[in-house]
Amino acid sequence: MAKQPKQLEVAFLGGVGEIGKNMTAIKFGDDIIIIDCGSTFPSVDDTPGIDLIIPDFTYIKANLDKIKGVVITHGHEDHIGGIPYLLAECGNIPIYGSSLAVALIRHKLTEKKMDMPKMHVVKNGDVKKLGVFSVEFVSVTHSILGAFALSINYPSGSLFHTGDYKIDYTPIDGESIDLGRIASIGNKGVTLMLGESTNVEKKGTTISEQEVGVTLQRIIETHSDKRIIIATFASNVNRVQQIIRMCEKVGRKVAFDGRSMVKISEIAKELGMLEYMDNTVIDIEDIKDFEPNKLCIISTGSQGEPMSALTRMANGEDRSVVIGDNDVVAISSQPIPGNEKAVYTLINNLYRRGAKVLYGSLEQLHVSGHACQDELKLMLSLVKPKYFIPVHGEYRHLKKHEELALSLGIPKENIRLVDTGNRIAIKKKSIQFIDSVEAGEVYVDGDSNVDSMVLRERKQLSSDGVLIALLDIDVENRALTAIDILSRGVVFEEEFLEKMKDVIEDVFATSSYKDEKSRGGLKNNVRRKLERMILNKLKQRPMVLPLLIEHSKTEKTDTVEVDEV
Amino acid sequence: MAKQPKQLEVAFLGGVGEIGKNMTAIKFGDDIIIIDCGSTFPSVDDTPGIDLIIPDFTYIKANLDKIKGVVITHGHEDHIGGIPYLLAECGNIPIYGSSLAVALIRHKLTEKKMDMPKMHVVKNGDVKKLGVFSVEFVSVTHSILGAFALSINYPSGSLFHTGDYKIDYTPIDGESIDLGRIASIGNKGVTLMLGESTNVEKKGTTISEQEVGVTLQRIIETHSDKRIIIATFASNVNRVQQIIRMCEKVGRKVAFDGRSMVKISEIAKELGMLEYMDNTVIDIEDIKDFEPNKLCIISTGSQGEPMSALTRMANGEDRSVVIGDNDVVAISSQPIPGNEKAVYTLINNLYRRGAKVLYGSLEQLHVSGHACQDELKLMLSLVKPKYFIPVHGEYRHLKKHEELALSLGIPKENIRLVDTGNRIAIKKKSIQFIDSVEAGEVYVDGDSNVDSMVLRERKQLSSDGVLIALLDIDVENRALTAIDILSRGVVFEEEFLEKMKDVIEDVFATSSYKDEKSRGGLKNNVRRKLERMILNKLKQRPMVLPLLIEHSKTEKTDTVEVDEV
Repeated sequence: MAKQPKQLEVAFLGGVGEIGKNMTAIKFGDDIIIIDCGSTFPSVDDTPGIDLIIPDFTYIKANLDKIKGVVITHGHEDHIGGIPYLLAECGNIPIYGSSLAVALIRHKLTEKKMDMPKMHVVKNGDVKKLGVFSVEFVSVTHSILGAFALSINYPSGSLFHTGDYKIDYTPIDGESIDLGRIASIGNKGVTLMLGESTNVEKKGTTISEQEVGVTLQRIIETHSDKRIIIATFASNVNRVQQIIRMCEKVGRKVAFDGRSMVKISEIAKELGMLEYMDNTVIDIEDIKDFEPNKLCIISTGSQGEPMSALTRMANGEDRSVVIGDNDVVAISSQPIPGNEKAVYTLINNLYRRGAKVLYGSLEQLHVSGHACQDELKLMLSLVKPKYFIPVHGEYRHLKKHEELALSLGIPKENIRLVDTGNRIAIKKKSIQFIDSVEAGEVYVDGDSNVDSMVLRERKQLSSDGVLIALLDIDVENRALTAIDILSRGVVFEEEFLEKMKDVIEDVFATSSYKDEKSRGGLKNNVRRKLERMILNKLKQRPMVLPLLIEHSKTEKTDTVEVDEV
Repeated sequence: MAKQPKQLEVAFLGGVGEIGKNMTAIKFGDDIIIIDCGSTFPSVDDTPGIDLIIPDFTYIKANLDKIKGVVITHGHEDHIGGIPYLLAECGNIPIYGSSLAVALIRHKLTEKKMDMPKMHVVKNGDVKKLGVFSVEFVSVTHSILGAFALSINYPSGSLFHTGDYKIDYTPIDGESIDLGRIASIGNKGVTLMLGESTNVEKKGTTISEQEVGVTLQRIIETHSDKRIIIATFASNVNRVQQIIRMCEKVGRKVAFDGRSMVKISEIAKELGMLEYMDNTVIDIEDIKDFEPNKLCIISTGSQGEPMSALTRMANGEDRSVVIGDNDVVAISSQPIPGNEKAVYTLINNLYRRGAKVLYGSLEQLHVSGHACQDELKLMLSLVKPKYFIPVHGEYRHLKKHEELALSLGIPKENIRLVDTGNRIAIKKKSIQFIDSVEAGEVYVDGDSNVDSMVLRERKQLSSDGVLIALLDIDVENRALTAIDILSRGVVFEEEFLEKMKDVIEDVFATSSYKDEKSRGGLKNNVRRKLERMILNKLKQRPMVLPLLIEHSKTEKTDTVEVDEV
């Protein structure tokens, strides 16, 4: 076996060319550490019926003996959602993350009744030794508490991974972004920086979380005679904390609605990240005991998710909350691209029930957790990396982040745009592409992984349905004794059904059907003729499945032959 | 039969509670006129496989003898897309519209090889008598030429329908909005106004089309060494005209790409709405004969439509245009809600091919054709209607438009929020709800109309696939002679297949199957058992279709019984 070159090698397993399922593996000699292991939410049009999309772990499984641990930048799903699947496939790899991230992972594993791996809680400034790597956790501000950038030293250089961040000089609680430490790391010299790109299309700087507080405060004050419902991301503990403080000031009780809102608030409370007086928070089922204008419900569903609390309310299906004209609903988030229609449907339905709905850009009801252009420039200017790879973005984001880096004087040959699976090496005097490893999307459906063939079948079934043609054949007499046609998701008149049967009879009569061997030809002909006929007459393209049932009177056994396309 | 009351009755058949498929029928005594007859585009998640959504024409068919004509406000698809289907179902109703709208309808009918109804071209100020109604066409500015508001007098009052509009004081060509005439109509007194609501969420006023010209001019000047590709809506003839004029100035040839761009430009040229020199426009197949920096391609696909010219280019599938790093692509539109993902995918793919892509809100690359809040207020202030019904909007838009009208002093009891199918009457001293007629969405798939049952089937097939269980039964001996299972879009291991067969055998063995009558019970049991087993073990919910094939050795005929759920 060839000697392993002693160089930094970075394998991008997710989060490049896409927003979601972030996962990067860095290798030096015989040591590998994994940075994040996230998931992505599926979409009805691209991945019908899928529950979750996770990274392909082939590269990790092929290098299991080298893996020293998983380092988590923060506890959002696109950074931890793949962990249970990784552990199930690769065994109990030790995990390093903030107290909140670790608690959220623990909760996931508990729900799935899985064994706990070794989990190490780290805080700002902590340095952990993982093989040849020494990993320093540096606090950054983001839309979840306990978010880190990573400064990783390896024998021949250093890597800086920004994680997801914004530069919020006035965060609500928790630590601010440690700009001093980042500057100091930059001053010592950083070989390679991986920088998040989510908001690179936006000029200027992200607004502070405090501004949302100002808006929410005004909403609560203005509507002192109404019940208030605020939908936001459960993981944004800071926002939830702000709302609770305001409610305590005006004497409103707070009730959480939605599974993840209840759970994450409980976890945050236990960790001391969420503080409130003993009698502030009440159970959602007890809201009936209080005057509506003494209540504030904090709920999930700000993205119009189908099973979420706010969607249930909007559809009149929530057990505890019945929406009426005494309600003010504030949607404290922006629709993630792809969710717009769901969110607008939600808003329409809330309006129909009489609520006043506050949403959208007219109000400062939400701020992003990601750095805009000026913040990205500040980060690049502090870290001053020799090499730069933009991450956490679709291709257009990576491209624009490259343009930004170029404008700051980083030479083009020192920047790489990468795709999922790409491996990059830091050579003595250059950054180079090594190869592309097996990587991509793994579709989780229930307890199974679905391949792209199944997705293609589902898409065809979805757009045009399925038509099953049953041919019952008397093998001895080479006679077609019965035909039946069954369809789902296809539209035609009774009359057309008879015509299809006629076509099948014709195909059979003119076919060279003799025995088993000629089955394939017969089935193909039936399928082709029916497909053409349906396309011409109905302009539809259902999946056509011919089934031959062959019976012999002399032989005892009947053969049922199904078609495998 | 009861005597018909002589009052204005308005039936809302589309365009309220939704954006799209606008259609309103107004009735007085025995006369009805239809205002617009549009279509909506389907979505993959809600209406899989559907080609087009049109209004339900039940009310029109029930009143065919009363219909005096269809009055078209302008030639966008959401105003004329349903016309061929209306004519096919209801016969040749006369149509009134601008020269462009009429030409676009004519083109539609020609493509479908349909007979032409009587079509009347009207212009600003024209008044047409349709039964008791007298309809005046009043020019407004919109994102298509030949757009009208309608001022309709009937024996006991008058109705003003704004159509779709913006107030563009500096339109490119064609007539400006006739504010003077609208004021004069308002001064004479308007009983009922129907006002479009699309942009009611936006403050201030819409930007003039001229501003897009300034941006495009700058793009063309800045990239004098590049080939330029501009994607926009084919029907925005004004924008196409602006681009052509700029190209003529700098000596670029213009080529149209995309079926509707080629066709609509041809129609607009014939109508004298699009002007250019003889040698300016070249065929897309001839672009190879010119230097790239002497070319500008105007294409369809600005919404990321799957089969459009720009999508083909981005996917490397366009016959004539191969995208490379010498291309600048400007996307001169904003994603319509629901199209965001498709548009971003398009942009990513264009970037991947090396093009520079200009898009989004950083550049003034697009302006809306719809009035913002201040324009809506101006319109309400000029028309000064007694009664007001907001139209052309989802519920939240209608609601906000109501709030706007309230703020201008229109009393709440004089405003009505309506839903599809609602009929409203103008009584002597009030506006009143009459009833709800059969109305809603008709799904066109190929040449058929699809019902919601078929859509439900497609959605189930889409998310979990289909599993067909074939039971071959010897009726005489009450024996199960063969089982086979065929699935599409479902995921399981070979081993699970055998387990399912075991379950089917168990169900059969313990069933009371005797003859035809007990079939139903057997099939239901097979389905239920398999469904439960698949849900428990695989966490999937495929559509399970049990098929019994019953053979009798004594009787000659075989029975194939298929399951009808």
